[in-house]
Amino acid sequence: MTATAVPVRSHAAPLVVAVDCSTTSAKAIVWDAAGARVASAHAPLPLSTHQPGYGEQDPADWWSATAEAIRAAVDGIDTDRVIAVSVTHQRESFACLDESGAAVRPAMLWLDVRAREQVERFGTNRVHALTGKPANPTPAWYKLLWIAEHEPETLVRTHRIVDVHGYLVQRMTGLWVTSIASADPLGLVDLVTGDYSDELLDAAGVRRDQLCELVDPGTRITTLTEDASAELGLRVDTVVIAGAGDGQCAGLGAGVTEAGRAYLNLGTGLIAGIVSESYAPSAAYRALTGAVPGTFDFELFIGAGTYMVTWFVDTFLEPPGVGGSTPGGLELHWEQQAAMIAPGSDGLVVVPYWNGAMTPYWDARARGIMVGLTGAHGRAHIYRAILEGIAFELRLCVEHAEAGLDRPVSEFVTMGGGSRSPFWCQLLADVLQRPIVLAGEDEATCLGAAMLAAAGAGIHDGIEAASAAMSALGRRFEPDASAPAIFNGLYAGYRAVYPALAPVFPTLGGVAA
Amino acid sequence: MTATAVPVRSHAAPLVVAVDCSTTSAKAIVWDAAGARVASAHAPLPLSTHQPGYGEQDPADWWSATAEAIRAAVDGIDTDRVIAVSVTHQRESFACLDESGAAVRPAMLWLDVRAREQVERFGTNRVHALTGKPANPTPAWYKLLWIAEHEPETLVRTHRIVDVHGYLVQRMTGLWVTSIASADPLGLVDLVTGDYSDELLDAAGVRRDQLCELVDPGTRITTLTEDASAELGLRVDTVVIAGAGDGQCAGLGAGVTEAGRAYLNLGTGLIAGIVSESYAPSAAYRALTGAVPGTFDFELFIGAGTYMVTWFVDTFLEPPGVGGSTPGGLELHWEQQAAMIAPGSDGLVVVPYWNGAMTPYWDARARGIMVGLTGAHGRAHIYRAILEGIAFELRLCVEHAEAGLDRPVSEFVTMGGGSRSPFWCQLLADVLQRPIVLAGEDEATCLGAAMLAAAGAGIHDGIEAASAAMSALGRRFEPDASAPAIFNGLYAGYRAVYPALAPVFPTLGGVAA
Repeated sequence: MTATAVPVRSHAAPLVVAVDCSTTSAKAIVWDAAGARVASAHAPLPLSTHQPGYGEQDPADWWSATAEAIRAAVDGIDTDRVIAVSVTHQRESFACLDESGAAVRPAMLWLDVRAREQVERFGTNRVHALTGKPANPTPAWYKLLWIAEHEPETLVRTHRIVDVHGYLVQRMTGLWVTSIASADPLGLVDLVTGDYSDELLDAAGVRRDQLCELVDPGTRITTLTEDASAELGLRVDTVVIAGAGDGQCAGLGAGVTEAGRAYLNLGTGLIAGIVSESYAPSAAYRALTGAVPGTFDFELFIGAGTYMVTWFVDTFLEPPGVGGSTPGGLELHWEQQAAMIAPGSDGLVVVPYWNGAMTPYWDARARGIMVGLTGAHGRAHIYRAILEGIAFELRLCVEHAEAGLDRPVSEFVTMGGGSRSPFWCQLLADVLQRPIVLAGEDEATCLGAAMLAAAGAGIHDGIEAASAAMSALGRRFEPDASAPAIFNGLYAGYRAVYPALAPVFPTLGGVAA
Repeated sequence: MTATAVPVRSHAAPLVVAVDCSTTSAKAIVWDAAGARVASAHAPLPLSTHQPGYGEQDPADWWSATAEAIRAAVDGIDTDRVIAVSVTHQRESFACLDESGAAVRPAMLWLDVRAREQVERFGTNRVHALTGKPANPTPAWYKLLWIAEHEPETLVRTHRIVDVHGYLVQRMTGLWVTSIASADPLGLVDLVTGDYSDELLDAAGVRRDQLCELVDPGTRITTLTEDASAELGLRVDTVVIAGAGDGQCAGLGAGVTEAGRAYLNLGTGLIAGIVSESYAPSAAYRALTGAVPGTFDFELFIGAGTYMVTWFVDTFLEPPGVGGSTPGGLELHWEQQAAMIAPGSDGLVVVPYWNGAMTPYWDARARGIMVGLTGAHGRAHIYRAILEGIAFELRLCVEHAEAGLDRPVSEFVTMGGGSRSPFWCQLLADVLQRPIVLAGEDEATCLGAAMLAAAGAGIHDGIEAASAAMSALGRRFEPDASAPAIFNGLYAGYRAVYPALAPVFPTLGGVAA
């Protein structure tokens, strides 16, 4: 992008707006310079899954939900104070747009797995080494290959291929510009050069001029257009600052900017992101351009995190008379029951592949395993073994990842639904033998985008300074020094289970790939 | 035994008494010549398990419970009609008696596993080939080796080592005589010669004169002593006929006497017994002297049968408002739920090793496995997968056993708690692709002993004739011809799970051997 002087208003008590345009909603939060929430609003996003394995949205909805959320959030705020806006978002999702900016076909989302066959055929080690992304249906590149085969006319009619960030920036500013930390998840960027890879573009039949210009996170792109200003309820001189994908922003918002530190999002699925200053491809992580320019975010994935807890509670119901009406009451009940059982769940081991195996095995046909069952095992054992299994799986992922890291992971800053369980946090600390520290802000992802906005607008002196000034830590769970003796043996057993059963999964009837 | 002329009263409507002296009680049933029950009574037996893995009884209790049950059963019966008595019983259990017949130490039961270390050291292929019994803590021989090491004075003071049958016959007749089909389970008999093995006796430090004389099942031993007659409430000229162990009697009572037919006891554990006319050792079965002289009973064992159903119901409770108060109501509820799920439980496979693996793997460290779990699986899937898993395990056991058989197994005559479930019976027929036929008599084991009594007393012309005359069959479940296509693929997956995980079990923390 040509360097453009962008005016930034100075204000004694400046605010920024950060938008998290996720799969299910757009959320807008107004933040102050210390990282405190001033106002927030959200608008839902419809999702179409008209065929199994498909997942689509209308990119126009990304904009209308974002605009609705921002308008509602700044309602009643003195917009003279709002000097910048930045976006974080669902990653890997992309839209194909014509010259007018209208969608040529519905946007294909990260969770769309229709390109499995293309992954089989084109997911080489070379592609992995270039992009940092192990072969898997998530990155857009495989879906572009699918489009080239099944809808060649789509690419002919496509003026621009945009990630969610790129789409929203164009609607805000009229420019086809996006953050490299937003576009990289599409799987078109060479992580060594930090630019699109011609080799990958050629393979997919995509021209460079069909893509957005790439800028670093925190870059001042330009100010709002008159139309956008009116639609968002923000002053026209509000500066649009390049954001980053939701995973990178989550780490930033949790204050995780140094190599060897990691964030840990205990959500429906579990994602851990480790900061690295150098790049090396590995099946142990998906490597992404970091939110801090010059860094990489090595992400570990467990498909089923709190998903398992929800499955357990839905499946095994409450004992009669126990707190079904209190939100979280059942989880608390089972946690108390599980806490009364000794570490190791009396020999019951759960491998939490309810949604397949991701890092480091990338086996979509893998499924959940319980091994070691006896008549002594009841529901509380199963609950405990599920939490232990997720902890063991994270340890497995971390140990595999550390082989490619500059330094070992020193601690995890955690967030997401599972982080509300002190029992689980302590268990994770004990199994991982590293501190687990609560992020001070529930909305760490959105806060990460706010930090980029604040840094880009000059409120803080750079991204790391913004992260330090605007983030806080909560309760700290130190590993119990007596835990390794208990857990190391269990973990050795855990580690052996999946490799033993891996050849069996394809033979199990009823398993959909 | 010296052939002795034993008078048998003739009576127009003769009756026999059969006793089943099991682990938990002695049951006496009076039967007529057509196999109908005339009267019955039972008396409980105390069991001592003062240390984990130990199981002991006072042999005097075997007698007092038996006497109490017989006395109560014949109360009100015209004992002129009762011409013979026979005994079936818990197997492998044995007592060490002094010259007065008093116990030198408590009797050690089949379920006593204290001799695990002796099994490791002495359980050779040679011992297996001689006895037909794969190395396992059940047979008495290993416990005699344990006694020789830990209590050498016990063997010095022991006048006779008796199985349950031998003990009761001595109390009835004063003679140290037992059935070979009762003594063989002790693991001291050479199955080829049909006599005690000097090699095995020498190894255990046991003298031949310490053992009972062996006779065939159905042999007339002699009449009751005056004392026994008074204590049992039977005429003194009632003839004692040699019986057999409970497993062999179950098959006989179900009318299973031809090679290639099998009985199937769907009890807490699952036992199938296949009739064979020739002997070959195999890990796929425990070979025993049959109830019909000249035949062998090849037995397959699954440690957890209806045990799994009980575990499921106890563990996962009923949905609110569903029939907990009706006996069997919960099983019925879950069976109805399971029946609505497609064969294969949507890819969920259960390996029912809750109590370890017996035939063909004999792995005491194996434990229960569930593999293939996803969020789509609820409790009804688990229930169905448990029933399917037991059916797959039986198919596995049968396929391994058939390699050593004269002919394939043509059908199974079934009994025990699980046989009351038509759903499970049909599932077994479909997975095994052989008819499953209900035995006509719930008390098939006790009826088997009654058949031996009736044959020995001359009521029927031989054991097979008695079995044919006194047994009946119930409902017949034919295999669904469309089932193989569904189940063969699932079974291939099932079969691969345990071999894959076998090396992992010893590494699982908390698994007690």
